[in-house]
Amino acid sequence: MRVTTIHAPRDIRLEQRPAPTIDEPTEAIVKVVASCICGSDLWPYRGENDIDPGSPIGHEMVGVVEEVGSEVGHLVPGDFVIVPFVHCDNTCEHCRAGMTSACIHQGFTTGGQGEYVTVHQADGSLVKTDGMPDASLIPSLLALSDVMATGWHAAVSADVRPGGTAVVVGDGAVGLCGVLAAAEMGADRVVAMSRHQPRQRIAEQFGATHVVEERGEEGEKRILDLTDGVGADAVLECVGTDAAMRTAFNIARPGSTVGFVGVPHGVELPIRRMFSKNIGLAGGMAPVRTYLPNLLDRVLRGRIDPGKVFDLTLPLEEVAEGYRAMDERRAIKVLLEP
Amino acid sequence: MRVTTIHAPRDIRLEQRPAPTIDEPTEAIVKVVASCICGSDLWPYRGENDIDPGSPIGHEMVGVVEEVGSEVGHLVPGDFVIVPFVHCDNTCEHCRAGMTSACIHQGFTTGGQGEYVTVHQADGSLVKTDGMPDASLIPSLLALSDVMATGWHAAVSADVRPGGTAVVVGDGAVGLCGVLAAAEMGADRVVAMSRHQPRQRIAEQFGATHVVEERGEEGEKRILDLTDGVGADAVLECVGTDAAMRTAFNIARPGSTVGFVGVPHGVELPIRRMFSKNIGLAGGMAPVRTYLPNLLDRVLRGRIDPGKVFDLTLPLEEVAEGYRAMDERRAIKVLLEP
Repeated sequence: MRVTTIHAPRDIRLEQRPAPTIDEPTEAIVKVVASCICGSDLWPYRGENDIDPGSPIGHEMVGVVEEVGSEVGHLVPGDFVIVPFVHCDNTCEHCRAGMTSACIHQGFTTGGQGEYVTVHQADGSLVKTDGMPDASLIPSLLALSDVMATGWHAAVSADVRPGGTAVVVGDGAVGLCGVLAAAEMGADRVVAMSRHQPRQRIAEQFGATHVVEERGEEGEKRILDLTDGVGADAVLECVGTDAAMRTAFNIARPGSTVGFVGVPHGVELPIRRMFSKNIGLAGGMAPVRTYLPNLLDRVLRGRIDPGKVFDLTLPLEEVAEGYRAMDERRAIKVLLEP
Repeated sequence: MRVTTIHAPRDIRLEQRPAPTIDEPTEAIVKVVASCICGSDLWPYRGENDIDPGSPIGHEMVGVVEEVGSEVGHLVPGDFVIVPFVHCDNTCEHCRAGMTSACIHQGFTTGGQGEYVTVHQADGSLVKTDGMPDASLIPSLLALSDVMATGWHAAVSADVRPGGTAVVVGDGAVGLCGVLAAAEMGADRVVAMSRHQPRQRIAEQFGATHVVEERGEEGEKRILDLTDGVGADAVLECVGTDAAMRTAFNIARPGSTVGFVGVPHGVELPIRRMFSKNIGLAGGMAPVRTYLPNLLDRVLRGRIDPGKVFDLTLPLEEVAEGYRAMDERRAIKVLLEP
């Protein structure tokens, strides 16, 4: 089968590899219908994470069950499924507490930018639809495998509630989904911090009531002005850099919580400010499986359309161009069709 | 009047200084009935914080209103009051949200280990009792000015709920009050991490169901064994050192929150673990005023007796000995009588 591999920074290839096989009776093989490139894939692409040369890449996908292990009871070949990027048994103590991303049988999708993937703990991990969804729904369903669930997790972690002001730091696809989540949770004002017009437009379609283009101190001042000096009731940090985290803590009101979902890179937390202002930090790797039934229902009812974050669709052959487009910010998020 | 001053590490003196006067119409002067030494006073005492030589010290006290400014409407001379260490107007946006320690008119008690103090924003800050309390209640009322409210804040921040396991890292007076708070909030199991027998006894009187004497990896293993490998539902970090914080994050279950109230000194937060395990951090400087009515009610009804943390009472003249006793861990917490 064909699968995307990374060999070195900016060296993305589509290669032939053996198709995956069932190694554990709890696994399933899923044939990819659509996959995509994640902002976190850009960390190794840009040389900011270590690379195991030749390793398959890609962890967001939807597809059709091809084969199941002998202990898989809830799925049959032909089922259309959403594949959470982090796999779980959905029965352990952590899963039962809603923390499926910390499952004791945790596993990950690898090689999602390819034709077939192995899903560990298939019964626990996979959520199927009733029949094959309409093609128009594929982008939004694909978004549920990571980016939308991650934006949702930022909003949950930041404790967004009806009323009040939520600010989203970061206008990547996760940040945009954070805007959508905060609006869906009923924040009165949803502020998108973005200086990029196409992203601003999507943010507004997703429910942003305000856009702040300034960054750093200027941007922080804008937020404080907007909130009469009080600060935001909820801040969603959707980048993972030190600058983004600093802004998040500088605009969060005392007693509030910064919800963070960007994989932290070089972040030094401002613990003295956290202490003196009682600003908490919560979040992390999104428990996608936990949110899936809720989010799937919202997509199917037409309440949310997170697929709008895909502004470029490419055939799998052009995956390297997809990385370039995202790296150069020519595309927000790239959907790949095998 | 006499007031305790600090001149250098381990140089504590009782000196004559002019009595405070009303400088703002919102202030009150309070005559100290009882004060005490805080664990945080030991940071400068041990040379770990900067010292402004000769500055008055002490921020926990109860007393009697001596004089009020022209804009103070709810208090009259003779009222017995609990003085939260952080003063607030109790009307601003932050106060109304319960975050009184971030009041826009924030002020602090200084020179509490003395005979008189100035209280800023007296109407907002002070909570009075109905008449003079019985002498036997003074220690518990004094504890409400900081240490008990701070332990309570750790438990609130860690989201202690009925059922489940709460672990308190730190067996200082704040940690012991954290035990009391967690028990009062209904945790099924309250684990005190302490290797000091007199403190263990108080912890047990306060509701600890388990004592773990081991520290570091050994102690963490004990907690994980106790919780079948899951980790604690709530962790109260009541020290402020890097080692205590590391232990807190190593024993907290995924999705839980470490409540921290120890002023952080040299702490490096384990952000990768926080991210991968979704362990949050919340807390900080306790909004004492917010909790006071609730805690006062519990003391007056005899539900809690946080005054037990005082195991040494000294006349103000012997304040230097009080510091020595706490520094050498001969005393848990020292009550001073002017």
